[in-house]
Amino acid sequence: MALNTQPYKGARDFYPEDLRLRKYIFSVWREVVQKFGYEEYDAPVMEPIEIYKAKTGQEIVSEQTYSFTDRGGREVALRPEMTPTVSRMVAAKRQELAYPLRLFNIGARWRYERPQKGRYREFYQLDVDLFGLESINAEVEMIQIADTILKRFGAKPSDYGIRVNSRKLLNEKIASAGPKAEVNEIISLIDHYDKLSTGEFQAKLAGLVETPETLMSFLEAGEPNGEVSKIIDASQKLGIEVGFAPSLARGFDYYTDVVFEMFDTDPSNNRAMFGGGRYDGLVGLFGVQAIPTIGFAMGDAMIAEFLKGHKLVPKLVSETDLYVALTGEIDVDKLVNELRQNLNVAVDYSGRKLDKQIKAADKKGIKWLLVIGENELESGQFKLKNLASGEEKLTSLEQIGSIIKSDNDGTANQ
Amino acid sequence: MALNTQPYKGARDFYPEDLRLRKYIFSVWREVVQKFGYEEYDAPVMEPIEIYKAKTGQEIVSEQTYSFTDRGGREVALRPEMTPTVSRMVAAKRQELAYPLRLFNIGARWRYERPQKGRYREFYQLDVDLFGLESINAEVEMIQIADTILKRFGAKPSDYGIRVNSRKLLNEKIASAGPKAEVNEIISLIDHYDKLSTGEFQAKLAGLVETPETLMSFLEAGEPNGEVSKIIDASQKLGIEVGFAPSLARGFDYYTDVVFEMFDTDPSNNRAMFGGGRYDGLVGLFGVQAIPTIGFAMGDAMIAEFLKGHKLVPKLVSETDLYVALTGEIDVDKLVNELRQNLNVAVDYSGRKLDKQIKAADKKGIKWLLVIGENELESGQFKLKNLASGEEKLTSLEQIGSIIKSDNDGTANQ
Repeated sequence: MALNTQPYKGARDFYPEDLRLRKYIFSVWREVVQKFGYEEYDAPVMEPIEIYKAKTGQEIVSEQTYSFTDRGGREVALRPEMTPTVSRMVAAKRQELAYPLRLFNIGARWRYERPQKGRYREFYQLDVDLFGLESINAEVEMIQIADTILKRFGAKPSDYGIRVNSRKLLNEKIASAGPKAEVNEIISLIDHYDKLSTGEFQAKLAGLVETPETLMSFLEAGEPNGEVSKIIDASQKLGIEVGFAPSLARGFDYYTDVVFEMFDTDPSNNRAMFGGGRYDGLVGLFGVQAIPTIGFAMGDAMIAEFLKGHKLVPKLVSETDLYVALTGEIDVDKLVNELRQNLNVAVDYSGRKLDKQIKAADKKGIKWLLVIGENELESGQFKLKNLASGEEKLTSLEQIGSIIKSDNDGTANQ
Repeated sequence: MALNTQPYKGARDFYPEDLRLRKYIFSVWREVVQKFGYEEYDAPVMEPIEIYKAKTGQEIVSEQTYSFTDRGGREVALRPEMTPTVSRMVAAKRQELAYPLRLFNIGARWRYERPQKGRYREFYQLDVDLFGLESINAEVEMIQIADTILKRFGAKPSDYGIRVNSRKLLNEKIASAGPKAEVNEIISLIDHYDKLSTGEFQAKLAGLVETPETLMSFLEAGEPNGEVSKIIDASQKLGIEVGFAPSLARGFDYYTDVVFEMFDTDPSNNRAMFGGGRYDGLVGLFGVQAIPTIGFAMGDAMIAEFLKGHKLVPKLVSETDLYVALTGEIDVDKLVNELRQNLNVAVDYSGRKLDKQIKAADKKGIKWLLVIGENELESGQFKLKNLASGEEKLTSLEQIGSIIKSDNDGTANQ
């Protein structure tokens, strides 16, 4: 029986034309976070399941991890998120690392969820983390980076919103409402505040706290504390509008203080695109002194939806500059190697008729075509064709690199 | 109990200073294969275990795969290699794709092997594949790419060797020696020719073929067939020395014709670094017409060992251009954003003494330091320090970008 050609359910094959968008997204992420002095790290995709049991949250660990036992009896999971991993790495070199420590990673994460638009079981994320700063400079830097990324993608301030809250403030309000359950359980309900009807929410809340009405009035129209107000003011001075959202909780158990998220203002996609917050305690779980820490993560599929929705996807073309079509059996390898000094060059050795070779170049999205045969080799004059415009010109071999390069400089591709 | 800070056994944490070498290796790989018109693709890390059972080889599938059953009952494996995946992808779009089709991927693979120098359970590979060319242009292009990569890393031709053989030729010799076992089993023994003593090898061979001496004489001193000779000649014309190796088999079951490998000539590391070959039948296993195909794969750890052994690792520095140290509580965010137009800039908001801030910059491997305090803001003159040379100069803010950029242009970093 023939093998199945489909990719794993909820995961994606990226053919070159698909990968171009992902590479564009990654390149913008990398460019912006590096502007802020962040350095890239990487880590194994497998981690002991324990590091997620500690603080990631019940739903992800018990229902969504890809976990299994390896051939040596180790219980491992494919990372559903990066925060526990980067905390482990920082803990392992707690004393040697220099703070403030700015780290980022771009890579795959896995969660067994129901696949839907913008959500995959295998997805890619940018994780940005800042270790060792207690002051709100850290919060403001995070918000500024997220904002700069969206602007660098071409978004206008009206295309997205930023909202902020404080877990500390939420915890205080929960404490004064007389909790009858674990705080994490109450936070987890608040995290669903926007998804439930007011009636449903209130009914559930009544089971978890003594005086639900005091907590409700905060969630509906509470005021920020001093720290959050300072963050909103400092962002404003940098030209970034940030709103206070008293019902914003974010899902992870490890958040300890300020949390924030970015959302799409397009009514057809009005949901949180990504977010983050302070998680000052996580590094300390690895047996070393805790470090003030803040971070956020941004997924590739969410951003791709945002770019498509706001018509911000640039025209992305092949990395191959030039396609060489051959007429007749001739040896062009040395000559083509000269062109490769400046250009990315694919040679069509198929021996097919010229029109088939040109069609292949066109299908691949390669813009420039060069035809080489005995005549061209003799005369030293080559026909260079722009497949996008249809224009042709005769040129010497030495000119080809600069003609194509100066044309490339005018395009936006990454 | 505290959580363990160690990475998964046989896998690696890449702190920024570790990742720089891997990124350098990836950037050279990408640069060279793109010169030859190859385009990048990617795919899920999980595949149905069946696609490896078909042709990857018994040892990898039954002893080395990371395989498990997902929450939906699917039997999957973390890919131990990329060839079955790329074959699946090409089969899925057999009719739409334009040939010759040149594809590459750089990513992680997983094999449960005993970790040792240059071998990890999680490792990274470049896979380069060319679909749709029957002629030896394909073989020569593969060899040329591998050779160009090694040279681009700074290797001299004497640092490495290239050898080639033909599975077709081996199969003929096996046929004429009267096989008593599956051809794959005999190939698998030949793959261990260099690792076994002559006595051991001959004893095992005697159990597998009727006339082991005819096969032995070929393995010891056989002659290439016409196709292999042509490949050796064509490579020579491009200035690449390729030797014939009658005992070269390569491990995978799917190779159908020419196989080749690169080895380190350093006596302390005298082993195959990487290799590849023709596997014309693999795409056809997915229920579509077969395509002539050739490819090779190159691992990151092997290359890193080679670069270290031949002293070819370049000096790799931080991506962060400038570290801003602050004296006093001042708001520099707008000013720093100006610098970020041209530079990657990290700000030390810690409020520590200046010498501690400078030490942090130094520890991070950042070359340039800028000190900003009230005085500097008033005078408009800033102290810019080169932490590598110790030189300091007073400069205006506008000059800083060009001073650092012109200095960067002189360094080799990727």
